[in-house]
Amino acid sequence: MPSFKELHFAKVDVNRLARRGFPEVIFAPGKTASQMASIAKALKRHGQPVVITKLASQPALALKRKIPWLKYFPKPRMAVGNFRPLPGKPAGGLVWVVTAGTADIPVAEEALLALKIMGCQARSLFDVGVAGLARLTKHLPLLRRAKVIVVVAGMDGVLASLVSGLVASPVVAVPTSVGYGASFQGIAPLLTMLNSCSPGVGVVNIDNGFGAGYLAGRVALA
Amino acid sequence: MPSFKELHFAKVDVNRLARRGFPEVIFAPGKTASQMASIAKALKRHGQPVVITKLASQPALALKRKIPWLKYFPKPRMAVGNFRPLPGKPAGGLVWVVTAGTADIPVAEEALLALKIMGCQARSLFDVGVAGLARLTKHLPLLRRAKVIVVVAGMDGVLASLVSGLVASPVVAVPTSVGYGASFQGIAPLLTMLNSCSPGVGVVNIDNGFGAGYLAGRVALA
Amino acid sequence: MPSFKELHFAKVDVNRLARRGFPEVIFAPGKTASQMASIAKALKRHGQPVVITKLASQPALALKRKIPWLKYFPKPRMAVGNFRPLPGKPAGGLVWVVTAGTADIPVAEEALLALKIMGCQARSLFDVGVAGLARLTKHLPLLRRAKVIVVVAGMDGVLASLVSGLVASPVVAVPTSVGYGASFQGIAPLLTMLNSCSPGVGVVNIDNGFGAGYLAGRVALA
Amino acid sequence: MPSFKELHFAKVDVNRLARRGFPEVIFAPGKTASQMASIAKALKRHGQPVVITKLASQPALALKRKIPWLKYFPKPRMAVGNFRPLPGKPAGGLVWVVTAGTADIPVAEEALLALKIMGCQARSLFDVGVAGLARLTKHLPLLRRAKVIVVVAGMDGVLASLVSGLVASPVVAVPTSVGYGASFQGIAPLLTMLNSCSPGVGVVNIDNGFGAGYLAGRVALA
Amino acid sequence: MPSFKELHFAKVDVNRLARRGFPEVIFAPGKTASQMASIAKALKRHGQPVVITKLASQPALALKRKIPWLKYFPKPRMAVGNFRPLPGKPAGGLVWVVTAGTADIPVAEEALLALKIMGCQARSLFDVGVAGLARLTKHLPLLRRAKVIVVVAGMDGVLASLVSGLVASPVVAVPTSVGYGASFQGIAPLLTMLNSCSPGVGVVNIDNGFGAGYLAGRVALA
Amino acid sequence: MPSFKELHFAKVDVNRLARRGFPEVIFAPGKTASQMASIAKALKRHGQPVVITKLASQPALALKRKIPWLKYFPKPRMAVGNFRPLPGKPAGGLVWVVTAGTADIPVAEEALLALKIMGCQARSLFDVGVAGLARLTKHLPLLRRAKVIVVVAGMDGVLASLVSGLVASPVVAVPTSVGYGASFQGIAPLLTMLNSCSPGVGVVNIDNGFGAGYLAGRVALA
Amino acid sequence: MPSFKELHFAKVDVNRLARRGFPEVIFAPGKTASQMASIAKALKRHGQPVVITKLASQPALALKRKIPWLKYFPKPRMAVGNFRPLPGKPAGGLVWVVTAGTADIPVAEEALLALKIMGCQARSLFDVGVAGLARLTKHLPLLRRAKVIVVVAGMDGVLASLVSGLVASPVVAVPTSVGYGASFQGIAPLLTMLNSCSPGVGVVNIDNGFGAGYLAGRVALA
Amino acid sequence: MPSFKELHFAKVDVNRLARRGFPEVIFAPGKTASQMASIAKALKRHGQPVVITKLASQPALALKRKIPWLKYFPKPRMAVGNFRPLPGKPAGGLVWVVTAGTADIPVAEEALLALKIMGCQARSLFDVGVAGLARLTKHLPLLRRAKVIVVVAGMDGVLASLVSGLVASPVVAVPTSVGYGASFQGIAPLLTMLNSCSPGVGVVNIDNGFGAGYLAGRVALA
Repeated sequence: MPSFKELHFAKVDVNRLARRGFPEVIFAPGKTASQMASIAKALKRHGQPVVITKLASQPALALKRKIPWLKYFPKPRMAVGNFRPLPGKPAGGLVWVVTAGTADIPVAEEALLALKIMGCQARSLFDVGVAGLARLTKHLPLLRRAKVIVVVAGMDGVLASLVSGLVASPVVAVPTSVGYGASFQGIAPLLTMLNSCSPGVGVVNIDNGFGAGYLAGRVALA
Repeated sequence: MPSFKELHFAKVDVNRLARRGFPEVIFAPGKTASQMASIAKALKRHGQPVVITKLASQPALALKRKIPWLKYFPKPRMAVGNFRPLPGKPAGGLVWVVTAGTADIPVAEEALLALKIMGCQARSLFDVGVAGLARLTKHLPLLRRAKVIVVVAGMDGVLASLVSGLVASPVVAVPTSVGYGASFQGIAPLLTMLNSCSPGVGVVNIDNGFGAGYLAGRVALA
Repeated sequence: MPSFKELHFAKVDVNRLARRGFPEVIFAPGKTASQMASIAKALKRHGQPVVITKLASQPALALKRKIPWLKYFPKPRMAVGNFRPLPGKPAGGLVWVVTAGTADIPVAEEALLALKIMGCQARSLFDVGVAGLARLTKHLPLLRRAKVIVVVAGMDGVLASLVSGLVASPVVAVPTSVGYGASFQGIAPLLTMLNSCSPGVGVVNIDNGFGAGYLAGRVALA
Repeated sequence: MPSFKELHFAKVDVNRLARRGFPEVIFAPGKTASQMASIAKALKRHGQPVVITKLASQPALALKRKIPWLKYFPKPRMAVGNFRPLPGKPAGGLVWVVTAGTADIPVAEEALLALKIMGCQARSLFDVGVAGLARLTKHLPLLRRAKVIVVVAGMDGVLASLVSGLVASPVVAVPTSVGYGASFQGIAPLLTMLNSCSPGVGVVNIDNGFGAGYLAGRVALA
Repeated sequence: MPSFKELHFAKVDVNRLARRGFPEVIFAPGKTASQMASIAKALKRHGQPVVITKLASQPALALKRKIPWLKYFPKPRMAVGNFRPLPGKPAGGLVWVVTAGTADIPVAEEALLALKIMGCQARSLFDVGVAGLARLTKHLPLLRRAKVIVVVAGMDGVLASLVSGLVASPVVAVPTSVGYGASFQGIAPLLTMLNSCSPGVGVVNIDNGFGAGYLAGRVALA
Repeated sequence: MPSFKELHFAKVDVNRLARRGFPEVIFAPGKTASQMASIAKALKRHGQPVVITKLASQPALALKRKIPWLKYFPKPRMAVGNFRPLPGKPAGGLVWVVTAGTADIPVAEEALLALKIMGCQARSLFDVGVAGLARLTKHLPLLRRAKVIVVVAGMDGVLASLVSGLVASPVVAVPTSVGYGASFQGIAPLLTMLNSCSPGVGVVNIDNGFGAGYLAGRVALA
Repeated sequence: MPSFKELHFAKVDVNRLARRGFPEVIFAPGKTASQMASIAKALKRHGQPVVITKLASQPALALKRKIPWLKYFPKPRMAVGNFRPLPGKPAGGLVWVVTAGTADIPVAEEALLALKIMGCQARSLFDVGVAGLARLTKHLPLLRRAKVIVVVAGMDGVLASLVSGLVASPVVAVPTSVGYGASFQGIAPLLTMLNSCSPGVGVVNIDNGFGAGYLAGRVALA
Repeated sequence: MPSFKELHFAKVDVNRLARRGFPEVIFAPGKTASQMASIAKALKRHGQPVVITKLASQPALALKRKIPWLKYFPKPRMAVGNFRPLPGKPAGGLVWVVTAGTADIPVAEEALLALKIMGCQARSLFDVGVAGLARLTKHLPLLRRAKVIVVVAGMDGVLASLVSGLVASPVVAVPTSVGYGASFQGIAPLLTMLNSCSPGVGVVNIDNGFGAGYLAGRVALA
């Protein structure tokens, strides 16, 4: 069996679900609706779920007209299709997805949807940034039960260091572009997280909620 | 009494006025009008003033429709509600807010409004940049009476060093994104201010007029 | 029981082994030998293992004279003391530590020593960078048995993406400062790893082999 | 014979086809449709083909109204006119143009069109990025017949190192601005390519597909 | 009376104590011992205290030979002379100087010495970084009595945000060059502090402990 | 006579023509049409010419409605009013304004208009970039008669070094934001010009044609 | 036959000469003399030439003591062993290696030695930077006979654009770290070369003379 | 007559004095003493003065042994030989060289020596930075007589804007690497100077005192 399907403009990796436990993900920016539709159909034909990330609402509409069986999630700006959750209880350990502020939620929603697709058990805790420390400390007993924690934060990005210092589980940190001026579209929290004085923090790309959810899911299922 | 109020997408810090002398501030970018309205209502229910920053005129309109008791200030792009100035004279020492140019005024207005909310005594002096030094030196006797001075400047950002060298009071410096090319959206004045050869200058984020006003107010009230 | 021990120049966190599964780590740069010795003694007095990172050979000699019970490891530039491996088999899943080149080995040795201290089962595979792909593909069946893989690479840093695309387990990526010119002391591989087109990669600071080993250990033990 | 033609706003280099084997190329951004039309006419009058790069669809329409003999290619955003392919077989060695993803194709189309204008023999292979390695390795025997290979990749940009390590021919690498966050509009793949641990990679500007095709063509014809 | 004294290589500002409440400070790097000695003598002749910053131990020895009345402080690398503390109790409000780690102490010592010269009442709290939160929270009641707090931190620099969120007094934040890799000699904590999600933080240059102490002193005395 | 005129939002420097030989210049971005109109009127009332820079066509229309006596120049995006050229021949030495490409012309037009206002003798030479060297060398005898040369170039910005190496007169270099990718909005030519291996090049801000013209005029008149 | 040889700390790619036309190259920095010696011996045992780059004179001495059959070249800081030039005339087209200044020569010597190892026909032209244009134009007829030209330049790096604009052959450009201040250790010429307004320039890493020679050799032999 | 002299490692531009009014300058870094000696001799043989810049004291000693007729100036780190000042009064207009601090003097000395070689009339004013404004304003009447002013400043670099705003003559600004932390080896004052809100400032490379003197000399003589 060939491990990929040749389209003119794409080689669809139909072996990825087997190899990596997750299908090839379609990154929307720079692709036309026709290209996305063809890739999605090829994935479906080979029994692969379809997951599209960073899909703005405008191209999502165009795509839905071509592939009605896709479901669009506007908050995480993702589309999902040909996906059937496994029966039974969620797999693996518990994952908490935590944000510093309300504006970080769309990135967190990406992580939550990725975790749901992977069949993981995930819970969310939003807006517990360090400006009001009591909001975090109250939830600490809950967080300490996690197998892995995703921390989503923009601006100063300090929440990842703080959480990591209080728990034993690994932390996946996602800097966001929330902020202005010297946050430099997410460089400030990215550097904060990379320099965490508390070890145990793995960092993903700015605004890469999906990647954080995927990584946390791999840890939870490992 | 719980120190914060749980909404689904936010934990509203209703203890902050008591703890820090200023309520939780709502940073508008990335929040929907509904989210801002819910947070504002929760703050009001707990007797906290409502202050929203970096609120563009378009979402301000949507928000006003949901919360008529909010007052929008277009120049500093802030909204304020459930706020009653304390009776009597302004508190603390005198604060001067100074700008290098006319285009820096909106950032200065953020500082002035923050100071007004804190009940501080504040005065403004606009467009006294170093290209015409006489404009500053004439006002020097007035500036020297300040307990703290906020200096707002873009482009080369030299005004903060200059003012600091002429007075004894501390200076809060705000770099602005006014300029083009190698001002790099405010990096140039930010670096100028951080490297001030005259000590006594504390710097805040680019365009962070509100933060500068808040910091100056804390100094004036200290 | 107090959770930390007060020295004049340090507050030794003697509760960290219990809280986080690993004792407070002494980061050597900027500390005098006397300061390190005092902290080490305080840790030992409270039953905590002593782990020192980024310790150059010169200060290591001075420190050994003060604390003979410390063992210095010159390749990872770490010192360890008051540490007794747990009896029985290594805990948790298998961890592979992989480097792109020979010059990346000292950073990998940091990770391996951290994993050993945590009682994890770790194996190493050095010099399998992408310039000779056969070196990696031959070892692929072995790598696929890992619960988590640490990839250490400088210069172009491409090994992390490549490994991640071939396995299902999570990857902890460590950019190193190996290289010259436009590698910018590790910025190039750092950005490569953050932008991995294959998801499942968590990145730590440049040359932070210890942090990568610690994070991988937390995943392996989770 | 004068080597250039004086217009008020341009000196058209009508000697370039003879000197460099390719006519002066019109870089569209910052030029009005009138200016482009005048330059194009001057080039045609002196027997030079007309090639316009980075021409968006809107100004292309305006330009077509002035110069109907121009043909616009929307994918590579180029316009070509007064060009007649040489009779006979394509000249020089075989050039492969390879992309990591589907979103990189427009940049690759620039290279392919440049190669076609130069009369070179070029083939394309799209979407063989490292996330699914089998897609590349299957085509390796074909790639090894190339005299020179153009690799187009965004995000982590690892494909150039990988291809270069597997073949003997020189590689022209084009970083693209495909990606987000810490890809910094193409800086990440640019640095990856400059630091390729496999030698034999020459890098051009971000998104400079035309320049890559031109350079590969010069190599193929050399 | 002339406000400055002309040397060939310097114009000594002998009016600064009167104008700004602190004498001209001699920044050592780039100055010869002879130049420093001449400036110090001129300052003394005009009744100004002598304060030298960033003075390494080697040039300090050379300088002491020329000016025996200077006292050198090796930890903050400063020299002070012709200075007599005012009689009576320290002036102004209480200042706390707080560090995240032990390696940040030399920078904190600069601040403490500046405050001592100004006659301020200052106390220090070292090594209360966020990796062990209990170290900070235990001292919170003490910190809350400060009129102003200086926070000194390298690596992720999160301590400034954290402290600011817990107190009402203004915070002067000093990023330090403690760290490695992506701390970029202090850029990481500098950005963290500038983007503090808790307002009330004024930032000074990297490693500028003296400037932070001076600014805090001006606030304490205001 | 007061040296400036107080408006609420501006201090108009009505002494600048006398002091610096050129009136205060109104930088348009960030100013409302009303503000610009008030400043312009105040300048006129005090006999100062009115010069506005970086004025886009949309606000120019709004401004013209308020101040009909302003003349708008769309190419350099400047407006001028209350200006009467001096009688007689142009003053000072000859100034050449040279561009590398056609897209650099708007920036060059800023310089030319500034020079015209100053009464200088200026000539222009457009599109003589280094890709076709003959275009420059042919005009060399003319350029060698200049008292000062303004060189405007984007992309690689090499023209400034080249011209400077061929003439004895000083060169004022203006990097432009023409280009894409690694030109980084003008950083590439800025660095090229600052590092010119041929001395005699003074650099101004990216796209600062007006400033270059002003500086060249001051040299020509000196 | 296995394609690589397993050492503990390295996997020596003994198949590379066959696969890529050039043996595995040993990058010296970060490797001990013992490691380099073992790799060199393994390469020799498998009939591969030994090439070491970026080898400083101090470790070169240590290495020579272990492997006397290595020959060290101090100017390009390379060592070569087990290499026998092919009999007969040099292969492929002519390569010119050109430098802007004298300080760029060591980088050019790397390229020349790489070309010699590949059996290519190479000539050098040093110190023809743009500050004295006649030095280049006089040699133009010679340069035009090249199949490919390597241009080595620091500071402003303009020589690559200039040469490329005058010839038809492809140019391999090497930025060097020669310069100071805003050359930023080679970033300035790197950007200049990437933005060359004359197409046909492929850029390698800063100071990567070896890589440039290798790439030029692959082109010359293609 | 040939316009340059061929050495193996250099093409000495013996025509530059005639063409540009100043001989070829030898940039010392990266050149051996032998290379410098050969170039110097070739220049002398063709009647050109010899000027060497950025020459540290150690290589200066080695060079003096080979060429006794060279005179070394340790402060500006330059060597000069075969130079005879023209008889009569200095040529051109008056040049002032001004520094912000004492540590900037070595860079200013480069400018002063360049001006002396050109036969210009130059005066110096050191240590008039903005921290003590009276030092500058007292000398203003003198500065206003200059035909051109060189301003040398590190740290915040504000002196250039300030001087430019007070005089009519053009200003050549030299940022220096004096400072620490966020001065980033001169980037901070470089950006300040490029963004001067007062026009009429031309900027040269960081620490490029020689280039500033040369440029000012060309203006003074123009």
